[in-house]
Amino acid sequence: MNGRSEVVATYLVESYLPLEDAAEVIAGEQSTGTFVAVARETAQLRERFAARVVAVEELPPTDHSDLPGVIRPSGARRRSGRVRIAFGLENFGPSLPNLLAAVAGNLFELRQVAGIRLLDLDLPSEFAARYPGPRFGVRGTRGLLRRPGGVLLGTIVKPSIGLPVEELRLVVRELAEAGIDFIKDDELMGNPAHSPLADRVAVVTEELDKVAARTGRRPMYAFNITDDLDRMAANHDLVRAAGGTCVMVCVNLVGLAGLAWLRERCELPIHGHRAMTGVFTRAPGLGIDFVAWSKLARLAGADHLHTNGLSNKFYETDEEVVRSIAAVRQPLFGGYSTLPVLSSGQWPGLAPETYRRAATTDLLVLAGGGIHGHPDGPAAGVQAMRTAWTCAVEGKDLDAAAHTEPALRRALETFGPRRA
Amino acid sequence: MNGRSEVVATYLVESYLPLEDAAEVIAGEQSTGTFVAVARETAQLRERFAARVVAVEELPPTDHSDLPGVIRPSGARRRSGRVRIAFGLENFGPSLPNLLAAVAGNLFELRQVAGIRLLDLDLPSEFAARYPGPRFGVRGTRGLLRRPGGVLLGTIVKPSIGLPVEELRLVVRELAEAGIDFIKDDELMGNPAHSPLADRVAVVTEELDKVAARTGRRPMYAFNITDDLDRMAANHDLVRAAGGTCVMVCVNLVGLAGLAWLRERCELPIHGHRAMTGVFTRAPGLGIDFVAWSKLARLAGADHLHTNGLSNKFYETDEEVVRSIAAVRQPLFGGYSTLPVLSSGQWPGLAPETYRRAATTDLLVLAGGGIHGHPDGPAAGVQAMRTAWTCAVEGKDLDAAAHTEPALRRALETFGPRRA
Repeated sequence: MNGRSEVVATYLVESYLPLEDAAEVIAGEQSTGTFVAVARETAQLRERFAARVVAVEELPPTDHSDLPGVIRPSGARRRSGRVRIAFGLENFGPSLPNLLAAVAGNLFELRQVAGIRLLDLDLPSEFAARYPGPRFGVRGTRGLLRRPGGVLLGTIVKPSIGLPVEELRLVVRELAEAGIDFIKDDELMGNPAHSPLADRVAVVTEELDKVAARTGRRPMYAFNITDDLDRMAANHDLVRAAGGTCVMVCVNLVGLAGLAWLRERCELPIHGHRAMTGVFTRAPGLGIDFVAWSKLARLAGADHLHTNGLSNKFYETDEEVVRSIAAVRQPLFGGYSTLPVLSSGQWPGLAPETYRRAATTDLLVLAGGGIHGHPDGPAAGVQAMRTAWTCAVEGKDLDAAAHTEPALRRALETFGPRRA
Repeated sequence: MNGRSEVVATYLVESYLPLEDAAEVIAGEQSTGTFVAVARETAQLRERFAARVVAVEELPPTDHSDLPGVIRPSGARRRSGRVRIAFGLENFGPSLPNLLAAVAGNLFELRQVAGIRLLDLDLPSEFAARYPGPRFGVRGTRGLLRRPGGVLLGTIVKPSIGLPVEELRLVVRELAEAGIDFIKDDELMGNPAHSPLADRVAVVTEELDKVAARTGRRPMYAFNITDDLDRMAANHDLVRAAGGTCVMVCVNLVGLAGLAWLRERCELPIHGHRAMTGVFTRAPGLGIDFVAWSKLARLAGADHLHTNGLSNKFYETDEEVVRSIAAVRQPLFGGYSTLPVLSSGQWPGLAPETYRRAATTDLLVLAGGGIHGHPDGPAAGVQAMRTAWTCAVEGKDLDAAAHTEPALRRALETFGPRRA
C-alpha cells in the first residue's frame, strides 16, 4: 500500500467477536493503539504507522479450548479464521528482535482472542540484506561430507550424558568406521565438568582424523556449543581451532538473536536443535507455528534444523512432520538453504515412507537408539539405515532386501514388531 | 541425595498414566533416557546422572483441555499433579541455556502428558556465583531517582510509534516538569529510521538535563535498546555516553542468554519488558509459569520486570498479577532485588486496591493512556496518579480527596465510570 515495505503476518485467530473486529484489535495493539485516545496521535501518523488488516478468511470451527480471560459476549458465536496483517517495515526496521515485538509481542495476551497463533511471515527483502542466513546449508554440508547425493545419515551419542570421554572415543571410532555421515552431542550435553567440551573435542577430532586418513571420508561431528553467549563463541573457536566441522546450537535456548549473533562470528555449519519448541507449538490455539519459527531460524543462520521425524516418539503427527520438512526446504529470498534434520525414534523401517512423503534425499536422518540399539552394535545399525535408504530411493522392498542384508534383517526383526 | 548439587524443577503434570509413571518419563527424557537400552549405559552412570522424581502430589482435576497427541489408554482417568524433579547440577553446570535444555527442553512434546507446565525452579548457589543478577535493583533505582520511599510513577511515550523526535521532546519536557519518576519507550519502538535512537537519546537527555538543573530531580528514561545483540550493546553505549540512566530490553525477544550477555557489559539499570511472555504462559496446561520465568530473568540481570497490573486490559486476573508481583519480590540468593513494574490500563482509581494487595510501595507503576489521556493533559495525569497513591498509602478515600484535588477528580470522572 502506497509503496511502503511491509511484513505480512498470518495468524490463526479465534474469537467471539466478529473476526474483522478481533483482527483490528490485534493490528492496533501491535502498532499505534492504546486504550484511550492520546494527544499527538494524528491521522497522518495513523495512516503511516498503523498495521493494516489485509485479509480475513473464516475457517470451519475448531475444537480448541478457549484461552483464559477471553471476552465472550452472551450468545456470541465462536469464530475461527486466517487473518493477515501488514506491518510497515519502517515501524521497526529489519531486526529480528524488533520484528518479534510487532508480530509476536503482547498480542498473545489480548482478551479479544479465544485463540491466537502466528502461522507464517512474509518478509521483505530488507531482511535478506541484513541477515546472510545459512553459510553452508545443504550444499556446503554435502561438500564437507563429500556426499553430493543421497540421504545423510547420522546419530546422537548415547548415553545422552555421563559417558566418560574415553568411552566417547570408542563410540565415535566405531560409528566413523561404519561410514556414518554425522554424529552429534545430545542437547543435554553442554560443557559440564565431568565431560568438558575441550576434552570431547580433542578425542573426537583425533578419532575422526584417523578415520579420514584411512578412508578419505570424515564424518561431521556437531559439538553442542550451547551456553551463555560469550562462552558459546569461545566454544565455537575451540571446535574450529581443533579442525571440527560443525557446531550444534539449541536455537530457543540461546534465542534467535543469540543465533544471529553467533552466525556473524561462526565459520562452521550450525546444527540447529529445536529443544523447547513444543512450549509454543503444542497448544493448537496458541503460539507460533513451526513454519513461522523455522523461517526466522533460517534467517538467523541455521544450516541444519530439526523437524522431528515420521512415527516419532513425540506428539506430532506425520502430517505435521512432513509440513515442517517442507517448511525448512521452502525457498526463502532465493537462497537460505537449510537441511532438515529428522530424528526421534528413527529406524530403517521408516525409510520408504519418509522418502515417499518428503520427496527428497536432502535430509539428515538421525537414528539414536535405532543405531546404538542394533543387536549387532552401532556399525550394523549404520549399515541397516544405509541399506534401507538405498532401497527406499530405488523403490525396493525392505523385507525382500533383508534376505541378503543381515544388518537390515536384524534391525527389522528388532525394531519392527514393537514399532508397527 | 549423596550430596550432589541439584536443581529442583516443579511442574504441573497432567496425564492419563499414573502420575508417578509420567514423572519418570519426564525425568528419563530430560536426563539419561532413550527409547531403547543402549550400550555403555551402566547402572553407575544412571545412578549419578539420572534425574530423580522427588515428589508427586495429586491435585484436584482441572478443566484444561488435553494437549494434542497424548497417550490415553481406554478407560484411563485423567490425573493432575504437582511433580518435583531433581536434576544433578553436574549434568549441565550453572548455565542458563543448558539449564533450560534439561528443565524445559523436549519434555513439552512428550505424548505421556496431557498437560505440562514448568511452575518453579529451585536453583543451587552455583548459579549465584555465576550470575551477578540485577546491578541496581530497587535500591539502586531509588538512589538514581532520589526517591527513597513511596511508589515510583512512570509512563510510556504515546503514541507508541511514529512520534516525531521534536514532539517527543515536548512530551518528555511536560512529563518531567510534572514530576514523573520514569518514562519509557514503547516496546514497539526500537531504532527505526524515522526515529533513530541516537536522535531520541539526544533530545530526551537534553530535556531531562534541563529539568534536573532546575528542580534537582531527574526522571529516569528507559530507552528501548532491544535489537540484534551487537547493536543492543552499541545502543547501550550510546545511552550511557549521553548520560542516560536506564535501558529497556524485551527479555524474550533477545533471550535470557541475550539479557545475561548484556548484563556483563551494561552500566545502567535494565528495564525488563515481558513482550511475548503470553506465548508460554497463557495456555493453562502448557508452558512456563511467570514464577519460574521471572526467576531466570532476575538471575540474568533484570533490574525492573513487568508483572502486568491490576484490572489490566490483558487476560490475567488480579490474583495472577498479585502472584507475579510477589514472585518478582521473592528473596533469591539473599539478594537479586528486582523492581516489579505494573502496567496496562493503570489509572488513579486502582491505587488503593493495588497497594492493599501488593502490600508494598516498592513498585514502579506505569500509566500510559491513564496519564496521556487525562483531559487536562499529562501533567495533570501525573498529579492525579501521585495524589491517588498518597491517599492509598495513607488510607484516605479517593473520592473524598478528589474534592480538593482537581487533577484527581478529573481523572476519576474520566476513567472511573467506564472502567468500573
